[in-house]
Amino acid sequence: MIVIDKKSNLPYYEQIYQQIKEQIITQQIPANQKLPSTRDLSADLMVSRNTVINSYSQLEVEGFIKSIGGSGYYVEQLNLPVSSSFDSFSNHVDHSIHTEHTPCKYDFQYGDLDYNCYKIKSLKKCITNAIDTLSVQQRLFYSSKEGIPELREALSHYLFLSRGVKCSPDQIIITSGHQYSLNIIAHLFSSEHWIFAMEEPGYDGTRAIFEQNKYKITPVPLETDGIAIKDLHNLKKTLLYITPSHQFPMGSVLSIAKRLSILKWAETNHGYIIEDDYDSELRYHTHSIPSLQSIDQNNRTIYLGTLSKSLSPDLRIAFVVLPKTLVSYYHEKERLSYCSVPSFLQMALAEFMISGYYQKHINTLRTYYKKKNKCILKLLEESNTDHMTLYGSDAGLHFVLSIPTHLEQPDIIEAFAKNNIQVYPTDIYWMDKKHCPKNQILVGYSSIPMKDIKNAMKLFFITLHDLSKQ
Amino acid sequence: MIVIDKKSNLPYYEQIYQQIKEQIITQQIPANQKLPSTRDLSADLMVSRNTVINSYSQLEVEGFIKSIGGSGYYVEQLNLPVSSSFDSFSNHVDHSIHTEHTPCKYDFQYGDLDYNCYKIKSLKKCITNAIDTLSVQQRLFYSSKEGIPELREALSHYLFLSRGVKCSPDQIIITSGHQYSLNIIAHLFSSEHWIFAMEEPGYDGTRAIFEQNKYKITPVPLETDGIAIKDLHNLKKTLLYITPSHQFPMGSVLSIAKRLSILKWAETNHGYIIEDDYDSELRYHTHSIPSLQSIDQNNRTIYLGTLSKSLSPDLRIAFVVLPKTLVSYYHEKERLSYCSVPSFLQMALAEFMISGYYQKHINTLRTYYKKKNKCILKLLEESNTDHMTLYGSDAGLHFVLSIPTHLEQPDIIEAFAKNNIQVYPTDIYWMDKKHCPKNQILVGYSSIPMKDIKNAMKLFFITLHDLSKQ
Repeated sequence: MIVIDKKSNLPYYEQIYQQIKEQIITQQIPANQKLPSTRDLSADLMVSRNTVINSYSQLEVEGFIKSIGGSGYYVEQLNLPVSSSFDSFSNHVDHSIHTEHTPCKYDFQYGDLDYNCYKIKSLKKCITNAIDTLSVQQRLFYSSKEGIPELREALSHYLFLSRGVKCSPDQIIITSGHQYSLNIIAHLFSSEHWIFAMEEPGYDGTRAIFEQNKYKITPVPLETDGIAIKDLHNLKKTLLYITPSHQFPMGSVLSIAKRLSILKWAETNHGYIIEDDYDSELRYHTHSIPSLQSIDQNNRTIYLGTLSKSLSPDLRIAFVVLPKTLVSYYHEKERLSYCSVPSFLQMALAEFMISGYYQKHINTLRTYYKKKNKCILKLLEESNTDHMTLYGSDAGLHFVLSIPTHLEQPDIIEAFAKNNIQVYPTDIYWMDKKHCPKNQILVGYSSIPMKDIKNAMKLFFITLHDLSKQ
Repeated sequence: MIVIDKKSNLPYYEQIYQQIKEQIITQQIPANQKLPSTRDLSADLMVSRNTVINSYSQLEVEGFIKSIGGSGYYVEQLNLPVSSSFDSFSNHVDHSIHTEHTPCKYDFQYGDLDYNCYKIKSLKKCITNAIDTLSVQQRLFYSSKEGIPELREALSHYLFLSRGVKCSPDQIIITSGHQYSLNIIAHLFSSEHWIFAMEEPGYDGTRAIFEQNKYKITPVPLETDGIAIKDLHNLKKTLLYITPSHQFPMGSVLSIAKRLSILKWAETNHGYIIEDDYDSELRYHTHSIPSLQSIDQNNRTIYLGTLSKSLSPDLRIAFVVLPKTLVSYYHEKERLSYCSVPSFLQMALAEFMISGYYQKHINTLRTYYKKKNKCILKLLEESNTDHMTLYGSDAGLHFVLSIPTHLEQPDIIEAFAKNNIQVYPTDIYWMDKKHCPKNQILVGYSSIPMKDIKNAMKLFFITLHDLSKQ
């Protein structure tokens, strides 16, 4: 029995379709039952025959009924579940309740940026220009997997001028973030034939990607001027991940002697160096250090950069510079890949770079963070906290602090939290956690607004003072 | 010997730094040589002492010189390469010359879209709104790895209304494309414990991702109403990838009987179904078919969708809907991940959906493509080409054509190319290429503008006519 509700918003064919479907599912119409002919049903319901034909077609394409040539429509033999779920089409939305503790007033987090120093206007202009250009060019497409030529061209110029990186646009791959870049490298090589080595301590996000890709991970200990060279000698067929210009998290700079030794190692042992140059623009007391890639004569360096620190983590833009010798292999391996960055955004960034906005922005950013960095260091100096050691405070957006206390990291962090200050552990950056100094914490200052620094640091010192008594 | 050029644009400290560096590299100043004191050199060059201190600091931080407390600065012992590359800092840009053949006038490619049916204005408005909102809220951040709540909420509503998908926003992960979605799934499971099975023929891009992630791939043969159920019975611990609502590339619809069997299989054998619903909005003759996810009562379906077909491939937005039971496991596994989609773009799309633009756009799109589809089918009918078989022409943006000829795919494609028509092979979608019918081609019509269809099809028929004589 089918009822047409002439007042309903549902079209007639939909009403017929729904009702027959329900009757099949609830087995009111059994399998193999013949349905009324379209002519009969349309007369019955006083609707057009086309309406019934539409309903039957939909039921047929979904496999509820079959048409047997000349004879009419029959219900299919369906293996229906005992308690049917078809009738419970209501949206059961589970909003899981996350228990979160109240966030601290001052969050010394690493990674998030301070919005105050960003002039979003010029970027917005570039984005709307890009959308307009695309609509005039009528381009709406999967861009080539390595990114649009305009942005790769702009980047190759910028990288040469700012970091000495020598590359053609062909060597550049635009990606949607550091992890995406690492995934490309992990896929380019093979975990069966290559070892992955990295600084200990080092960035846990990097380690996670190579673990996920089933690489054997070898930690290489850190000395004050970068990784211990003697530990490299036994490493053959190795991808060595380093942060030479500003070690993460300890902030050291890899000396030129070590840079040359590492290049020599890579050449001799057929290794590759993955140079992560994640925040090289942000040096405050010396100018930025030429990249390892710029002095590599043997195509052993894969250079990684990101706009997450220098522009915004929200743009999701990073890039890989491959050695010339790996470019065609990459194209072969990633034959079926697509670029993960929208091309309108790539066009906007190309314009942002070419028109000089980017360089201007970097300068503003450096000045701004330098002021913040100087202010914090000055306050630290004035605080007269004895026996405290600061690592990596002359660059970037964070430092590591050793506190003279017998407490361990979780307790130190809790002590800060009690004073409304959120600081972070460093043990996550160690593969072998027992080597991690118990009294170190990571302090990121990028997202604390300038106006809050003094108040935040006041609470910071109160905590430090309390701690040094424990 | 250091010379200060007072007319140069380079600051003095930079000139000093550069010259000393060059002299160290070219070994004009040997290792362990003491440098003049900062006081002496500044007097010598008639520059301030601070200028020299700046130069020395930079050289020290880069490891060219070391300061020995009280005694002064000394050149480091460097293991320099024989032919130094430091002096060749000019940008050697190799623009590799790609040899490309002239593209055909009419490209029946699958994937790219026709710009004419896109109203970009409303999307642009949403994007600029999003940027403004972000700048007012002062949010500039790494968004949570699964995407912003606003977009996940909007998607969960949309998916329920349009595809019957029952999920809470918590189950949705926003990604930057189909391949990214698949990578998340490949990482969530493990190639050591899980088999990956997919339709044969099936989408080569999907196969590539799971091969890259080292899964064993099992092809499951296709019948006219979807995969052969009998071939599933031996598959335990398997991820089964299917395109039930519009099989790619053959265009068939998985019957309801088979849908129920597959769900039963997954439940019994503890398998998971990866349902790729890539172009479900685009059905022209029947309305769209409820998803497999919507009738799954046992949390065995991982649902994949994309905005590449319905909105634009250039936006790089796709999504995964996890079963409730996998959500917390995902959070644990991908603890260190970031979302790869810019949050301003996510906000823009959330607004685009909530304000109804998206649904309106889908309707326009469907009408537009339906017209194109109808026009092509009508022309095909009128062409009187005998013994030609058309697969999957009632939905989506492509069809597969079997041509009555003894020629094989590459020759067929060449014959079309001679008439300025680009068509595509289907053998790439087969794991076992010998099972691929030799006389099939893939014809995508999404990017051919409406106004060109008639002329393009004229050339198409001339080729078909020529081919059927061979």
